[in-house]
Amino acid sequence: KQVTREWQPRQSVVDVGGVRIGDGSFTVIAGPCAVESREQMASAAAAVARAGAAVLRGGAFKPRTSPYAFRGLGASGLDHLVAARAATGLPVVTEVLTPGDVDTVAERADMLQVGTRNAQNFALLEAVGGAHRPVLLKRGLSNTVEEWLLAAEYVVSHGNADVVLCERGIRTFETATRNTLDLAAVPLVKSLSHLPVVVDPSHATGHRHLVPSMSLAALAAGADGLVVEVHPDPENALSDGPQSLTFEMFDDLMARLRRLAESLDRRLATAPSQENAANAG
Amino acid sequence: KQVTREWQPRQSVVDVGGVRIGDGSFTVIAGPCAVESREQMASAAAAVARAGAAVLRGGAFKPRTSPYAFRGLGASGLDHLVAARAATGLPVVTEVLTPGDVDTVAERADMLQVGTRNAQNFALLEAVGGAHRPVLLKRGLSNTVEEWLLAAEYVVSHGNADVVLCERGIRTFETATRNTLDLAAVPLVKSLSHLPVVVDPSHATGHRHLVPSMSLAALAAGADGLVVEVHPDPENALSDGPQSLTFEMFDDLMARLRRLAESLDRRLATAPSQENAANAG
Amino acid sequence: KQVTREWQPRQSVVDVGGVRIGDGSFTVIAGPCAVESREQMASAAAAVARAGAAVLRGGAFKPRTSPYAFRGLGASGLDHLVAARAATGLPVVTEVLTPGDVDTVAERADMLQVGTRNAQNFALLEAVGGAHRPVLLKRGLSNTVEEWLLAAEYVVSHGNADVVLCERGIRTFETATRNTLDLAAVPLVKSLSHLPVVVDPSHATGHRHLVPSMSLAALAAGADGLVVEVHPDPENALSDGPQSLTFEMFDDLMARLRRLAESLDRRLATAPSQENAANAG
Amino acid sequence: KQVTREWQPRQSVVDVGGVRIGDGSFTVIAGPCAVESREQMASAAAAVARAGAAVLRGGAFKPRTSPYAFRGLGASGLDHLVAARAATGLPVVTEVLTPGDVDTVAERADMLQVGTRNAQNFALLEAVGGAHRPVLLKRGLSNTVEEWLLAAEYVVSHGNADVVLCERGIRTFETATRNTLDLAAVPLVKSLSHLPVVVDPSHATGHRHLVPSMSLAALAAGADGLVVEVHPDPENALSDGPQSLTFEMFDDLMARLRRLAESLDRRLATAPSQENAANAG
Repeated sequence: KQVTREWQPRQSVVDVGGVRIGDGSFTVIAGPCAVESREQMASAAAAVARAGAAVLRGGAFKPRTSPYAFRGLGASGLDHLVAARAATGLPVVTEVLTPGDVDTVAERADMLQVGTRNAQNFALLEAVGGAHRPVLLKRGLSNTVEEWLLAAEYVVSHGNADVVLCERGIRTFETATRNTLDLAAVPLVKSLSHLPVVVDPSHATGHRHLVPSMSLAALAAGADGLVVEVHPDPENALSDGPQSLTFEMFDDLMARLRRLAESLDRRLATAPSQENAANAG
Repeated sequence: KQVTREWQPRQSVVDVGGVRIGDGSFTVIAGPCAVESREQMASAAAAVARAGAAVLRGGAFKPRTSPYAFRGLGASGLDHLVAARAATGLPVVTEVLTPGDVDTVAERADMLQVGTRNAQNFALLEAVGGAHRPVLLKRGLSNTVEEWLLAAEYVVSHGNADVVLCERGIRTFETATRNTLDLAAVPLVKSLSHLPVVVDPSHATGHRHLVPSMSLAALAAGADGLVVEVHPDPENALSDGPQSLTFEMFDDLMARLRRLAESLDRRLATAPSQENAANAG
Repeated sequence: KQVTREWQPRQSVVDVGGVRIGDGSFTVIAGPCAVESREQMASAAAAVARAGAAVLRGGAFKPRTSPYAFRGLGASGLDHLVAARAATGLPVVTEVLTPGDVDTVAERADMLQVGTRNAQNFALLEAVGGAHRPVLLKRGLSNTVEEWLLAAEYVVSHGNADVVLCERGIRTFETATRNTLDLAAVPLVKSLSHLPVVVDPSHATGHRHLVPSMSLAALAAGADGLVVEVHPDPENALSDGPQSLTFEMFDDLMARLRRLAESLDRRLATAPSQENAANAG
Repeated sequence: KQVTREWQPRQSVVDVGGVRIGDGSFTVIAGPCAVESREQMASAAAAVARAGAAVLRGGAFKPRTSPYAFRGLGASGLDHLVAARAATGLPVVTEVLTPGDVDTVAERADMLQVGTRNAQNFALLEAVGGAHRPVLLKRGLSNTVEEWLLAAEYVVSHGNADVVLCERGIRTFETATRNTLDLAAVPLVKSLSHLPVVVDPSHATGHRHLVPSMSLAALAAGADGLVVEVHPDPENALSDGPQSLTFEMFDDLMARLRRLAESLDRRLATAPSQENAANAG
């Protein structure tokens, strides 16, 4: 199988709009769960860029358990994302829900996310396998590591080798956290596969006060990066408010990650424009 | 919510090509996991019709964990299903994997199945919600009863009220069976919702020797029917061989179900053509 | 291993104060979760005896998640159980929590129960393995079938072959029911082991309205019996009220079980004194 | 409840033979799964002491799923532990299986371990609650955080406030690892309770190659320490060989932990005798 270390012993590096995931650096992907308005997206983007995130996230098409919940702004959400990219220089990742979305989203975003509920939506996996954008593939809520790697194999075998795996918690009997973060899956997957692996502590825990510890743990465990939800006003977020960090919490987290990365001889990844800014500065 | 007993206290009855599911009778849906050839399908169809099944099943488009496994015959599989319907008079149910399949399949089949891995593929749920065919909605591998009913709500709120729910086992720590049949979900769902509920003991257990007991238990628990895999030659099946009944086992099971149904003042459903045959006989 | 069919192909029959479990009949064990008072126990015992239960249950020593919950009446609870046996003629089963309890309880009760939280308390398993009373061994909340059979092996290999296994629900992600009744474990265990297997639908579901369906399903699935909680006043029970049947519900359930058993060529077991009473009547 | 932060806001510090767990340092408890012989224990003890572990572990009484597996050396295992303590100066922790063991073990060992299968053995919890030794309380295989804290409450409410909680993996559907390490339970428990929390990456993962990453992650997540299995010859260990570190791996892990701790402004705990040795050196 193409995703295995047997097939390719060398670690894969996935380029997302100039940000290289899997090259030894630690890539922080951050932003709100859902794009709610141009202002909310702009505000969140500016804050996470300033704090040092390398990639911006935000959902325009939202999968929701209930058909009556807020399901995203759709195309105008993509517009706000693109505007936030222009303002900050950060590449953007956003979710695709169905094969019919793939072309539209691939034209605008730098990376396509396949969510946990679509982790075995094989038609969608093949559709993103035919796209010219890297893919962020979340682990299914109840997928084994083996099934998760086979889902990646659908994408890769369809022609798109640029897959980043995302551990985001699995479903267990424990209800005190939203899901159970299976952090041991990080070193396990890295031993089995050459694909980069990032961790989403926001969905895994469901509680913002647990996100910083799990972010540091993910870095210490050897993950290639994080996906973290950050919102200008978590109390009033249209989705996932309880697990979203405030700007202040995110600033503090980035400082702690930076210091921890150093002690591990790693560094936080930066977006190309930020490097330019840094060089110019 | 439209699927609840609060919305509609009266039990729903779903008509599948003349077979009424939910009217108090017990509907046996049977056939091979996958359509493998015209001959295999014809043979299985004749056997299950003879034994008294009311609806025929068979997969033309197969979701498979690995991209390298047998993934169904596609359109020609539908042809074989249609031929088997013509020969036996049994209406047919088959799976749809993606919104793009829905129109094609709805033209040929009597009922559209949404599989366990697509149980929260909301784009697909909305697509079958717009189709003019009843829907067999399997419970997701790790979906709570609440999430399962909300998945049904996607279909119903999109305009298609003809949904039959199918309990097919959930994922737990136990590995001696393929999944864990959550049979208590049957009376629970029937208390919460007016939709019919059937049970798939084949996928739930993964072992043919456990299928008869669980079929009888499903009837005793108050289910509206069964979905059972039957294959002319399970040892050489292209998928799910170990859980498929032989013709002999299915004959025996039908006889036991018939007797059990009587003691519960119920009867096994029959297809319209079979009733005609019975009346003529 | 001594509990396997390889070791002993013939089905074991376990004698509990004259009631034979595993002989093809269906044994209903019923009573309150906890012995709360002499009156409560007498009332429940009379009601379940009248309805046709064969064995009486009631907890004198109660394992409770919190140290501050009602933990049973202890020795005086045993007195009330013994009095209820004298009044009804039904043999009694009650739980032992620790090796130090075994002798005391074995002197008074007809059967020793090992609860789900002690399913791998190996010192206790060995202690009941040395007792001269049959053992009702509940499956651990998160024990595989293999581990459950090995727990039984502890008892049997220590000298006590009279073990009845009890499936009482396993812990899964589903929270709508207290546990998930793994009914497929019944035919599975019966194929692997010669020991009788009974089902506890009360703890498995946690809701009295689900208990009758699951009781009928257990019989249809081939179980050797049931353990059902019945209480004179469930609303005011000191433990497990929501899952306890009222007397009326239990009467109705027994009538339905009797009819279902007949259709399966089985009969409900009766206590020896009841047979005498019946013969005398 | 006495284990909560509401009851006692201040972090508890538990003294184990002079090693203070919970004082901000990171305590490494290491040694073989089972005491197998005087030589094996002496060799392992010398190696983990040299590498900087603060407490020695080793099982004399072993709970085993099968009655036919190696169940420990019993009393002579305790002798070997005591000898290893004398040789290295490290305090020792070992498991108690039943109330009858508590006095014997408490006379010899510095800390009493209650294992995962006994996490709701309430009689044992009360027995160690009456002992004059600190208790290492493992989380039950399928216990929620709430149940785990209530188990600790049994010990504390019985008079023994010196409880250290140990997250050791929970049972989930994933079979690629022995259990699923629920690392988010560490910050969660620390927010709810004042008791120290340590992590056992050996039992949680079941594979030695995953232990170092999870050890570093535990430190980064804020745990108060680790319990790690180390064996002179893992290939020939009588139990848990696949998850035991070699001496070389443990040396390397300790060096990495030391560096990581520094970057978090923490230090590894040392045993009193080692401090003396260090001061004298």
